[in-house]
Amino acid sequence: MSENKKRILSGMRPTGALHLGHYFGVLKNWIKLQDEYSCYFFVADWHALTSEYADPRRIKNFVPGLVKDWIAAGLDPKKCVIFQQSQVKQHAEMHLLLSMMTPLGWLERCPTYKDQKEQLAQKDLNTYGFLGYPVLMTGDILMYLSENVPVGQDQLPHLELTREIARRFNHLYGDFFPEPEALLTEECKLPGLDGRKMSKSYGNSIALSEDMDSVKKKVMSMLTDKNRLRKNDPGDPCICNLFPYHKLMTDPARLPEIEEGCRNASWGCVQCKRLLLESMERFLAPIHARRKELDDNPEMVWEILRDGNARAEEAAEATMTAMRKHLNLDF
Amino acid sequence: MSENKKRILSGMRPTGALHLGHYFGVLKNWIKLQDEYSCYFFVADWHALTSEYADPRRIKNFVPGLVKDWIAAGLDPKKCVIFQQSQVKQHAEMHLLLSMMTPLGWLERCPTYKDQKEQLAQKDLNTYGFLGYPVLMTGDILMYLSENVPVGQDQLPHLELTREIARRFNHLYGDFFPEPEALLTEECKLPGLDGRKMSKSYGNSIALSEDMDSVKKKVMSMLTDKNRLRKNDPGDPCICNLFPYHKLMTDPARLPEIEEGCRNASWGCVQCKRLLLESMERFLAPIHARRKELDDNPEMVWEILRDGNARAEEAAEATMTAMRKHLNLDF
Repeated sequence: MSENKKRILSGMRPTGALHLGHYFGVLKNWIKLQDEYSCYFFVADWHALTSEYADPRRIKNFVPGLVKDWIAAGLDPKKCVIFQQSQVKQHAEMHLLLSMMTPLGWLERCPTYKDQKEQLAQKDLNTYGFLGYPVLMTGDILMYLSENVPVGQDQLPHLELTREIARRFNHLYGDFFPEPEALLTEECKLPGLDGRKMSKSYGNSIALSEDMDSVKKKVMSMLTDKNRLRKNDPGDPCICNLFPYHKLMTDPARLPEIEEGCRNASWGCVQCKRLLLESMERFLAPIHARRKELDDNPEMVWEILRDGNARAEEAAEATMTAMRKHLNLDF
Repeated sequence: MSENKKRILSGMRPTGALHLGHYFGVLKNWIKLQDEYSCYFFVADWHALTSEYADPRRIKNFVPGLVKDWIAAGLDPKKCVIFQQSQVKQHAEMHLLLSMMTPLGWLERCPTYKDQKEQLAQKDLNTYGFLGYPVLMTGDILMYLSENVPVGQDQLPHLELTREIARRFNHLYGDFFPEPEALLTEECKLPGLDGRKMSKSYGNSIALSEDMDSVKKKVMSMLTDKNRLRKNDPGDPCICNLFPYHKLMTDPARLPEIEEGCRNASWGCVQCKRLLLESMERFLAPIHARRKELDDNPEMVWEILRDGNARAEEAAEATMTAMRKHLNLDF
């Protein structure tokens, strides 16, 4: 990892197994970024507490699982730093220091705060920490003096808040933090097996670590174009759930053939599903192979984290040392 | 310091030199407590940021000054642990973890929050950290599994909030924290030289480290019973600013004589001030002597803090280790 590359930070909460939606929406981009940037990818276990505080005991098991999903998918700990937020204690101090100068109104008016509170209405999220989520996130980003943050369109308001906090800090105490810029990632949302958003809670997802028997059952029972009742009826790939999967996983050279065969009914849905299953098998095979290696050597993932935590901590402590000095709070 | 003694935690913000009001209101009690309890006294420098965030650079100098004031007044680092909050990083992690399960409404409704915001209206305190002040304080107290907290009547609502947070934690995750109880300290407020509350900002205070020339000038120009215009007019010790000082610093055996002399005008205000000055000199002499020793050896106070920080950190890490395990967040 060259230090001349721009720094990037991104994280995920350890709240369950990753599925294909995560892969095409986020992970695929991370895997590309690790070659171009100096990347810090972290398990956001403290963040997970903002919504999971009532049942924190579930988090622990998801931590190694998440890292396995990342590495199985193609993240390479030799190319990027993979670490666990709660093991780099500097994040807690950064959060505390930033909390002192973050206006309450900025947090209360944050659109994602209002959204999330509504979406998770069944959980009691009227907590101090949930309101302060963007402060914790800002600290994560600023800690590594990240110049870029890969975000989707919907996360832009959060990043804007981070930039505002960085500007306020620089205004109050003199220039210190770079204002991180959005690295907008192409929206690449894979729909769920039923066409809705892919989500484990909807039961319409395929996990990256799912065994092929289960994948096969799910693919063979996927909904296709519901207007195509018989094989001889012409279909429309634009309203079929299968086609977006083909576009992401099947050899692009074959797409015209699939589209045409669907529209002129020379090609049946079962055939189409079999082809998708082949594509998926090819796609998942190396992921499953790497996953197996990690599962067979359970210490590996902890070693990767230990190494990543140490590298992240070194960078974090360098920032905190400079920041304390900047505030004349170095003792 | 025996581990069989009950634990106590208390702190002060490093925002300026301590004066006689601090001594009789708080410090005198601390000095007594250090013999009876296992005491942790801390420099609340992170707390100072809640109100001083706009100008944090002033805090640094006040830190050694505060510790010198404490030790000069009689705190003995052999009897108690004297530490600096920001040097025991566990406090930031504790604050973060507690923030996740502290209801926002509890903080918004805290009476001292509303009070302070009004009192400090000239500062912009609509910050996230200022609202979360009681969470940070709760963390300080719970960190040392303190069974008692010395508080004045006016701080009871804050301690009640701490107890509520401890109860909520125990309710959500199973018994862990003791509910700290108030050790109500006798209200012993020394008025300022002009009869108002003693405060540096009112210019009516005598600092513990003030040189005797300055003390003399201040005492000799103190306001006495304003109805007593001539020496022959009878006075009323109950409405004289001097008498509360005599009660705290002059040999109690002489009080009846002072009171009578004032009431029957056989004793003049100047005489009364001279006696007070003698008492004050006797009171301040050992404080000034110890202070001089600390000023002459500037490394001493840092050594005391280094030692205290290490002892506090050991206790804090023990609590955090147990707490992480209790939440299944130990890695």
